Amino acid sequence: MKLSQTGELSLIELIRDRFREKSRGVIVGIGDDAAVIKPPDKNLLVTTDTMVEKFHFDLSFITPYQLGFKLVSVNVSDIYSMGGKPLFLLLNISAKKNTEMTFIDSFFDGLRDSMDRYGVNLIGGDLSSSYRDMTLSATVLGVAKRPIRRSGAKIGDKIYISGNIGDSACGLELLKKIRKPFPFSHPSPSMGKGKGGGEILRGLPWKAIEPLIRKHLLPIAREPKEFASYASAMIDVSDGLLIDLWRLCNESKVGARIYIKKIPLSSELKQAASHLGLSPLKLALSGGEDYELLFTASPKKKVKAIHIGEITESERVIVDATGREKPFTPEGYQHFV
Amino acid sequence: MKLSQTGELSLIELIRDRFREKSRGVIVGIGDDAAVIKPPDKNLLVTTDTMVEKFHFDLSFITPYQLGFKLVSVNVSDIYSMGGKPLFLLLNISAKKNTEMTFIDSFFDGLRDSMDRYGVNLIGGDLSSSYRDMTLSATVLGVAKRPIRRSGAKIGDKIYISGNIGDSACGLELLKKIRKPFPFSHPSPSMGKGKGGGEILRGLPWKAIEPLIRKHLLPIAREPKEFASYASAMIDVSDGLLIDLWRLCNESKVGARIYIKKIPLSSELKQAASHLGLSPLKLALSGGEDYELLFTASPKKKVKAIHIGEITESERVIVDATGREKPFTPEGYQHFV
Repeated sequence: MKLSQTGELSLIELIRDRFREKSRGVIVGIGDDAAVIKPPDKNLLVTTDTMVEKFHFDLSFITPYQLGFKLVSVNVSDIYSMGGKPLFLLLNISAKKNTEMTFIDSFFDGLRDSMDRYGVNLIGGDLSSSYRDMTLSATVLGVAKRPIRRSGAKIGDKIYISGNIGDSACGLELLKKIRKPFPFSHPSPSMGKGKGGGEILRGLPWKAIEPLIRKHLLPIAREPKEFASYASAMIDVSDGLLIDLWRLCNESKVGARIYIKKIPLSSELKQAASHLGLSPLKLALSGGEDYELLFTASPKKKVKAIHIGEITESERVIVDATGREKPFTPEGYQHFV
Repeated sequence: MKLSQTGELSLIELIRDRFREKSRGVIVGIGDDAAVIKPPDKNLLVTTDTMVEKFHFDLSFITPYQLGFKLVSVNVSDIYSMGGKPLFLLLNISAKKNTEMTFIDSFFDGLRDSMDRYGVNLIGGDLSSSYRDMTLSATVLGVAKRPIRRSGAKIGDKIYISGNIGDSACGLELLKKIRKPFPFSHPSPSMGKGKGGGEILRGLPWKAIEPLIRKHLLPIAREPKEFASYASAMIDVSDGLLIDLWRLCNESKVGARIYIKKIPLSSELKQAASHLGLSPLKLALSGGEDYELLFTASPKKKVKAIHIGEITESERVIVDATGREKPFTPEGYQHFV
C-alpha cells in the first residue's frame, strides 16, 4: 500500500486516530485550520527545524522509525537549550506519492516514542507531495520560567558541556562506511548483546561501534535540569562545538578559551576514530548532532557538568596539551557552504 | 552571488538585519535556539503550511517576490479562518546551494510586504540546503477571542462564501498556457493599464486575464471581520469549494445543500474559462487557492456575504439551475492522490 492509495484526507484521519489523546491545554488539535491552545502562563517558546533527505538523512542507513524519533529530538533540543519544557509539536511532511505506508507507519512509531519520552503532544501540521526528496519539518512549542539565551555569557564565566561530544559524527562516519541500516528502536546500547557481532568492520568490536551509531541514529535531547536555574548562556551542540561556541560568543559579544585536554571524548570514539584513521578531537570539535548542552555559568556556581574553558573578553582560542594557545574558527556544519 | 558564497551564518545575519524591528510581545526573536514570546491572554492559534516546488509553485511563472508574498497569505488564511488575528511567523527554507542571492532578496521583499499587510512579525525559522527542489514552510501564531472551528455548523444554518471563487484556478490555467512570469508586486489589478496588452492570448483581453493571474500569484487572505462574531463554523477555500465544504461537513457531522446559481463567479472567470474551453463552474467548485472564507451562520443572523446554501442533516447535494439535486463528492486538490 502506498501513500497514493491512501490519499491526504485518509492519512490525516489515520494521524488523528493515532495521536488522538487530548492533552492538557489543547483546545483544538489536529484537523482544523489551526490548532488552538490555552496560552501558558510562562514565556512561550517556539522553534522549528527541517530535515532534508540527502542532507540531514540518508535513507540507505536510517530507518523510518529512527527518522521520526530523531526529528522530535532535534526540535526538543532547541527548547531544552533555552532552559524550557517542550509541550506541543506540529509536523510538516513532504513525501513522494509512492512512499510505502509501512514507511509512514514506522515513522509515526518513532515519532510517537520520541514524543512520549519528552512529554510532547502532536497538535497539527501539513502533508504534501514532493517530487523527489523527502522534507520533514517540525515546530515545537514550549514554556520556560527563565529563558536562557545565547547572549548572557559574561567575561570570567566558566564554559561547560553536558556530556561527550564527537560520538554522533563518528557514528555517521561508521554508517557511511558500513552503509546498511541498524533497526535499533531504543536509544540505550544493548551492551554488546544482540545482533551485530565483530564482523561488521574488521578489527573494531561491536561494543565500540554500537553506542556511536546509536547516538547518531537515535539522539536524545539533553534535558537541562539543574543547569536551567543558573546557566548564564546556553546553546545545544547541533552543528559542532566550535561553530556553536562561536555563535554563543557572537551573541554574548565575548571571547572564549577552551582546553583540548578537557574536551570529553568517549573511549568508543577514540577507538573507532583511530580505526577509521580520523582524529577523535576533530570529530568532537567540528562534528555535529551530539545534542549536548554547551553553557556558561558564573565561577561561583557549583556545576554538575564538564568544565572545558572560560569566557574571555574577545580572543577565541583553544589551548593544546602543551599549553599553547591557537585561535579557533567556526568549524562545523553550515548550510549552503 | 549565490547562497553558497553567502553561507548559512551570513544569511541568518542578513535576515536579522532585514526583519530586525522589535515587535510587541517578542522577548527573543531571530537568532537564538528558540523564539520567546510573551504568552497572549487569549486563545493561542498555531498553523503551518508547506509549499513544495513543482507541486505548489512553478518557478517558470511565479516570481520570488510573489512566492514570498503567497507563502505568508496561505498561512495567514488559516488563522483568519479560525476567526483569529495573526501575530508571528517562523520560516523554513530549503534551497539549493546555487540559488541566486537576488532570488532570496526578492523573496524576502515579498515576504516583508505580505507580513506588513497582515501585521505579522518574523521571529524565527530554519535554513537548510536542498539537493533539488525548493521547499518552503511557514508557521504562523495568532490569537482568537472565540476560535471558529470547522465543527460548529448546525442543521438549518445557512452557508456563505466571502467572495468569488474559481479565479485563482483559472489564473493557474492561464499561466500554464502562457508560461511566463508577470512580475506584479501588488495584489490590486492595474485595471487594464500597464504592460500586457491583448496579445498574450489571442482573443482574450488583458483586462480579463490580469485579475485572474494576479489572484493566483498574489492571493490575499480574507479577513473575517464581522463574520468572526457570528459564524458557527468556518474554513478557508484553499483546496476547492467542494472538498473544503466536505471537510466542514465531516467535522460538524452534518450535510449540505448548495445552489449552482448562487455560486459567485466573476465575469473575468466566465470570459477566460470559456476562451480556454473550461467550465467556470467546475473551476469554482473544484479549483483551489482562492482563500475566500466558507462559513455557516444561523438563519437569524444578518450576514454580509454571499449565501450559497444551507446545512442539512446528512445529504450532501448540489442543486442545478433546473432545481434538480445531485450528490457531490469531495472534489478538489488532495495530496498524494
